[in-house]
Amino acid sequence: MGLESNISFSSHKWKKGKYNLITDVPNVFVGHVTLKDDVRKINTGVTAILPHNGNIFQEKVMAGVSIINGFGKSVGLMQIDELGTIETPIIMTNTFGVGTALNSLVKYMISQNEDIGMTTGTVNCVVTECNDARLNDIRGLHVKEEDVLNAISNADVVFEEGDVGAGTGMCCLGFKGGIGSSSRVIPIDGKDYNIGALVLSNFGSSGNLVLEGDRIGRRIEDKVCSKKDEGSIVIVIATDIPLSERQLKRVAKRATISLGRVGSYIGNGSGDISIAFTTANNQKHYSDTNIIDIKMFYDENIDCVFEATVEAVEESIVSSLLHSKNMTSGFRIESINSLKEYL
Amino acid sequence: MGLESNISFSSHKWKKGKYNLITDVPNVFVGHVTLKDDVRKINTGVTAILPHNGNIFQEKVMAGVSIINGFGKSVGLMQIDELGTIETPIIMTNTFGVGTALNSLVKYMISQNEDIGMTTGTVNCVVTECNDARLNDIRGLHVKEEDVLNAISNADVVFEEGDVGAGTGMCCLGFKGGIGSSSRVIPIDGKDYNIGALVLSNFGSSGNLVLEGDRIGRRIEDKVCSKKDEGSIVIVIATDIPLSERQLKRVAKRATISLGRVGSYIGNGSGDISIAFTTANNQKHYSDTNIIDIKMFYDENIDCVFEATVEAVEESIVSSLLHSKNMTSGFRIESINSLKEYL
Amino acid sequence: MGLESNISFSSHKWKKGKYNLITDVPNVFVGHVTLKDDVRKINTGVTAILPHNGNIFQEKVMAGVSIINGFGKSVGLMQIDELGTIETPIIMTNTFGVGTALNSLVKYMISQNEDIGMTTGTVNCVVTECNDARLNDIRGLHVKEEDVLNAISNADVVFEEGDVGAGTGMCCLGFKGGIGSSSRVIPIDGKDYNIGALVLSNFGSSGNLVLEGDRIGRRIEDKVCSKKDEGSIVIVIATDIPLSERQLKRVAKRATISLGRVGSYIGNGSGDISIAFTTANNQKHYSDTNIIDIKMFYDENIDCVFEATVEAVEESIVSSLLHSKNMTSGFRIESINSLKEYL
Amino acid sequence: MGLESNISFSSHKWKKGKYNLITDVPNVFVGHVTLKDDVRKINTGVTAILPHNGNIFQEKVMAGVSIINGFGKSVGLMQIDELGTIETPIIMTNTFGVGTALNSLVKYMISQNEDIGMTTGTVNCVVTECNDARLNDIRGLHVKEEDVLNAISNADVVFEEGDVGAGTGMCCLGFKGGIGSSSRVIPIDGKDYNIGALVLSNFGSSGNLVLEGDRIGRRIEDKVCSKKDEGSIVIVIATDIPLSERQLKRVAKRATISLGRVGSYIGNGSGDISIAFTTANNQKHYSDTNIIDIKMFYDENIDCVFEATVEAVEESIVSSLLHSKNMTSGFRIESINSLKEYL
Repeated sequence: MGLESNISFSSHKWKKGKYNLITDVPNVFVGHVTLKDDVRKINTGVTAILPHNGNIFQEKVMAGVSIINGFGKSVGLMQIDELGTIETPIIMTNTFGVGTALNSLVKYMISQNEDIGMTTGTVNCVVTECNDARLNDIRGLHVKEEDVLNAISNADVVFEEGDVGAGTGMCCLGFKGGIGSSSRVIPIDGKDYNIGALVLSNFGSSGNLVLEGDRIGRRIEDKVCSKKDEGSIVIVIATDIPLSERQLKRVAKRATISLGRVGSYIGNGSGDISIAFTTANNQKHYSDTNIIDIKMFYDENIDCVFEATVEAVEESIVSSLLHSKNMTSGFRIESINSLKEYL
Repeated sequence: MGLESNISFSSHKWKKGKYNLITDVPNVFVGHVTLKDDVRKINTGVTAILPHNGNIFQEKVMAGVSIINGFGKSVGLMQIDELGTIETPIIMTNTFGVGTALNSLVKYMISQNEDIGMTTGTVNCVVTECNDARLNDIRGLHVKEEDVLNAISNADVVFEEGDVGAGTGMCCLGFKGGIGSSSRVIPIDGKDYNIGALVLSNFGSSGNLVLEGDRIGRRIEDKVCSKKDEGSIVIVIATDIPLSERQLKRVAKRATISLGRVGSYIGNGSGDISIAFTTANNQKHYSDTNIIDIKMFYDENIDCVFEATVEAVEESIVSSLLHSKNMTSGFRIESINSLKEYL
Repeated sequence: MGLESNISFSSHKWKKGKYNLITDVPNVFVGHVTLKDDVRKINTGVTAILPHNGNIFQEKVMAGVSIINGFGKSVGLMQIDELGTIETPIIMTNTFGVGTALNSLVKYMISQNEDIGMTTGTVNCVVTECNDARLNDIRGLHVKEEDVLNAISNADVVFEEGDVGAGTGMCCLGFKGGIGSSSRVIPIDGKDYNIGALVLSNFGSSGNLVLEGDRIGRRIEDKVCSKKDEGSIVIVIATDIPLSERQLKRVAKRATISLGRVGSYIGNGSGDISIAFTTANNQKHYSDTNIIDIKMFYDENIDCVFEATVEAVEESIVSSLLHSKNMTSGFRIESINSLKEYL
Repeated sequence: MGLESNISFSSHKWKKGKYNLITDVPNVFVGHVTLKDDVRKINTGVTAILPHNGNIFQEKVMAGVSIINGFGKSVGLMQIDELGTIETPIIMTNTFGVGTALNSLVKYMISQNEDIGMTTGTVNCVVTECNDARLNDIRGLHVKEEDVLNAISNADVVFEEGDVGAGTGMCCLGFKGGIGSSSRVIPIDGKDYNIGALVLSNFGSSGNLVLEGDRIGRRIEDKVCSKKDEGSIVIVIATDIPLSERQLKRVAKRATISLGRVGSYIGNGSGDISIAFTTANNQKHYSDTNIIDIKMFYDENIDCVFEATVEAVEESIVSSLLHSKNMTSGFRIESINSLKEYL
């Protein structure tokens, strides 16, 4: 939340939300489980995003996805694209934790819904990932099923950023990365709406870092560890603005611009994916009627939503850097806060 | 309309509409201009589909597109995909008539809307095409701007099928093809809704023709002109069921099945595109409010819409064959009606 | 292989391969593990397709994907689309077995490749699924990690079809479905090439069954269990024809036609996905040179590949029905062979 | 070419080519026709890009497309996506000039190729556009067919940038925009290769202008005309690096980052499209053999191509601004050069 740093993110056009977190969107919750063990080189974890605190399978949120670069192993995106809904919490973890997270999420969902796999179909679990192999013994598959359940039950409005949860072992633009979040408030037709973003940042090479327009990476390239642009980023965007599935896909795509603003050129090895959902058009699993009322946004005026999204995602990435501390685990990676003299 | 043929399309599950035409969807209109001149080998034309009879730019219809095979030169599909709306009549003509049809449609639209290109943006004209070069001197660019205007002004509820309008010089599955149309009625929540299709058929090789399951093409291959599977098909699907842009895209995609049912394997050289629109979610160009009410269909029960679409498109293709007559223009092509002894 | 049935698939245009199996493509292997336990209502399993018998991660096969209907939970497709390669065996199992299969495949791959997650990136595991909940206690998550390893080590040129492996508990078009396979031989520039298909069939409603053009489903609708079109189908197409990633995607898409030929209209709830790979353009994980020689097919003549694919996939689906036996597991489902009197 | 400005684009990582133009890619040529008439408020034109100076239909260039935002009316992109080739010059003009340009290009192509529409199929003409209605009487349809032919015949290695050709009446980020170009040299396996970009810039609002990281737009917002982010940008990327169709599509997509670098957030009304082609994998229209040798790039090392593309496109956009002069045509728009005091 409050940046504990002498670097601040100031050049925003849209007003920030109360906590400047994705949870400024009412009813959205985030929880972490952090796994750390220096002896076994474990630095990983799980982050869970709850689109709302009810039964998500029975009341799905409308959603859209943008595959910015498909070099990634996330699970569940294809069905979001087809049906325009999310029906589980969104889980983030490391690349080789996906199978375990998926098993855990399946069990969680069937425990909550007796109809799944019995009187109704199955369930589309959303599990996203980045590769934290630099700082974490990823081959050890250290994420356990209970970690996922705990991340879900830890979910709250206020949550930590930086090297926590799924972000524990991530690196970004040559520095310690991880979880970052931000939000914006948009007045629409006389009412305030919210857009929030949360990222799991693990992409980019140090020479490319850009901070609010300052191409600082080029000045400090020899001072930090160099790194090919592999890794990835997972971007989740939440809003309470009523958007259609098509519009949510457009919103998700705008996160590409935020990536560029902090220095990415969408590296080959970076699995960059963006998911946007709204809490304003929920879809019941069982409906009495075939014709359903929903709301969408007047496209001609949607630029405010796009622009605020770009800002919130940019700040989320920077925030993931600002909240992370130096880490040594075989390999040493600095926090961006060690850079203050170059700013 | 009524098939003037001893072949009928009988194995349908869903009830046919009043005229068994796309215009059974209330407010949809179709008009043709047919160009024929034996001396100059002209066999071509223009067909116009009006999604409604008001000002389409000011009141857009919601739409989705499926590119079944992108070997085609249609205009305007990209924007339908992005914005989910159609804002002009849909024009069909021959491949080299597209430029002229586009110019004509631009002029028609700006004559109807003083704001276009002045106080508002431009307009996304939809012009689709197939290649009628076998029977038509396509290099002569014989379609004129007034032909497009006349097709629009000819638009009516009742219209001809077969070798008329844009279908004049088309070939399909080894026989004379062209314009075909069909419709189905679907009861939903106690009310009757309509799905209509109109095709411009110009694809497929004769050996592959299938009529209601009967793989007749294999029996008659040596009796008709053989032909590589080039050509194309343009499929337009209209409905008054309230579907979202995402759902309309899904509906458009189901037309692929209809292609398969009549014998296509989606040939390399066949530009097969499908456009679906609904008249039930119209979008105003100017809106006083940013949050707009629309309706969508409960996906879990949408199979009736898919199935009726597949039927209506299949019958439309067959109907385009049944309504076409033998044609000789340099090259001779038979009507499918000459085949009755083999059925 | 040989159809143990009085129904045969005869109306093919292209020559069938030696075994009429996907493994007629040299170097492709298939293995099953079948899990059955009447007391616990277990009818499920795992099927593994090996694109070649070397180290697939070090020598990837070029591939393309078509999402026919994205209501599915397969894993790994996004990266195939981005990079155009497959780097693991392709695993098929039930929907809730995906997490375990993914974990098992990750462990298998890292055991074979010390560089994964250490000196190189991670690995994109391909795991596909259908929902066998009707005949299998899917909520019990009965697939174990060793089942996946055993399916891989069982892989051979000759393999069973029908209610085996991942197909054990599947239903298709109102009958017992499962694994089916077929192949075609295509002479190109004086040399014989192969196209093979393997399907995991679990889609369609009984009233829609079509057998080689005969719309038999309509005649027998009241004689078999009715069923909404949910389920899914996974289609894998292998070839030794050198095709580019773009061309493989086109080939994969043609399987949509095969679905239509047996009676599908692409139901809402059917996760229909198609994966095509070639063994003729293998890509090394480590390359000494940046410019790589590959081969592609002259698009203008590619129709033979499309048509043979459509045939092989159609026959694979029919073959999955013909090779399956009656099954009772809570619910009774007939083999299509019980239908002979209606044919 | 040489920037006649006190603003220079200096912060590049990759070496610029000889002319710093797209034509640094050998065999690529660019020509303009500029239409200006103060009395009739005509400020528009045509720009033609020739992928090589031979018969492009007979020897097609391999290509890929990225639709960054589909609010646009370009013609021919769908087929590039399907077949991976371009077979005509790429024409740029204003939105309502597309029909005329298409007609002209069709006639040009059939005059050069007697087989088109006779013994072979038709031709996929590529015509792209932006809306110059602010400074040009777009409703007057002032582009004539001969303008397109003249742009093609004017094509040369050295060409003008700024308010010329199709760029004559364009506005970008609050300033006079138009045609911009740039290039980079990439050493690969001991040999120098080239990447060049050319843009038709017409997007963005003034408050968002970013110059090499400096968010100058925010400082000068009240000093220039404000403008909603409508307009569009067409981006063409050429290279002599052998890339596959899939890789060219990836390269085209990276231009999104360049848009972000100069201040775009991909406005709703901005039709942003990007086309990439290579001159290194030409495809003959007629082939004696079905198996064709092509070359592709080792994906693992492709980041140099992505990064140089991002730079070249960014500099092209800036260059379009730097080369444009103040223009008054009903409405007055400043050149960015008038801003030097704020830099």
